[in-house]
Amino acid sequence: MLKLFYTPGTCALASHIALEEAGADYELERVNFKTDDQKKPEFLAVNPKGRVPALVTGKGILTETPAILAYICQTFPDAGLGPNDDPYAFAQLQAFNSYLCSTVHINHAHRMRGNRWVDAANTDAIKAMQAKVPESVGECFELIESDMLQGPWVMGGNYTICDPYLFTLAQWMKGDGVDLGRYPKVIDHRTRVGERAAVKRALASEQ
Amino acid sequence: MLKLFYTPGTCALASHIALEEAGADYELERVNFKTDDQKKPEFLAVNPKGRVPALVTGKGILTETPAILAYICQTFPDAGLGPNDDPYAFAQLQAFNSYLCSTVHINHAHRMRGNRWVDAANTDAIKAMQAKVPESVGECFELIESDMLQGPWVMGGNYTICDPYLFTLAQWMKGDGVDLGRYPKVIDHRTRVGERAAVKRALASEQ
Repeated sequence: MLKLFYTPGTCALASHIALEEAGADYELERVNFKTDDQKKPEFLAVNPKGRVPALVTGKGILTETPAILAYICQTFPDAGLGPNDDPYAFAQLQAFNSYLCSTVHINHAHRMRGNRWVDAANTDAIKAMQAKVPESVGECFELIESDMLQGPWVMGGNYTICDPYLFTLAQWMKGDGVDLGRYPKVIDHRTRVGERAAVKRALASEQ
Repeated sequence: MLKLFYTPGTCALASHIALEEAGADYELERVNFKTDDQKKPEFLAVNPKGRVPALVTGKGILTETPAILAYICQTFPDAGLGPNDDPYAFAQLQAFNSYLCSTVHINHAHRMRGNRWVDAANTDAIKAMQAKVPESVGECFELIESDMLQGPWVMGGNYTICDPYLFTLAQWMKGDGVDLGRYPKVIDHRTRVGERAAVKRALASEQ
């Protein structure tokens, strides 16, 4: 059986939703960030990076949201979460998810994880990073709104592994101080994803 | 025919090498960062993100290194650049490349692209970011050295799309101020990749 290590409020939600959408047989294990469990030896043995998500499979452990989502997409083909047989279309999904992972999530992370990139004691620099987040995250959602989100789902007519990932990162928009009114398509998409039964089940089980 | 938009010294080198390794029929188009060509309308029509690499295919344009590498891997199966028929093994490649993209490259980018995450006029914060790079990039290569690089290639016995990507980012280690002596496996890998004919061809054509 698959096992997903997750923490509520993190990007692990995307993988969690994808498992629900796929109808996968899986269990959850919560990693408590408040007690820094992600830095303890037990969890570092699962993921030496000390991050969630991590997905335990019968063959080994996978990390990194885009990789886990691609794995779920390919191993549950009947769920139709992506065009597994079309390398170009499949790569489009990977490009979208890679952008979320390496640009949107990173810009967001400068609000609360600034000590990854400056000395933790340098509160001025930490604050300078936080001050830029509304702009840097806002620019990402502007591009998503104008160019990337085809509608009604990210890739157009078919719900794919891109949708729960965008939904997950869109949870953070208000906290990041972006003006939600500027992104009607993104907010509409967030609402639409949130109404899915699989998404409701995933959210409920993380509470 | 495929066309790769690239700039010398950037992560586009990974896709360039992969095209060479695959024996692909492709052409190159250089984007001049010195004259800010990546921000001009002509290039923004190719990639609204204003970044390289971008790969023009017969079906459309792909961006993001992990997506382009996965596309090359899947569309040139005879080149054997990855386990296209094994979702778990394929996801391991994606996880490695996603880590390079969203953690290693990002930490590196704080040396010269700090204005993405703080106000460009805040030189103190920019310098604080630069000061952290040797540590933040060094920690990544420590993990790659100890846990991720199986040897002789990233994924063990088979050269895959992970190898040119790691090779590309390892070009930046000295500039990032990390102590190369601490990463003998990574440096050995960098040398080994650099000796491949396809890599030599790609490097030569970028000069």
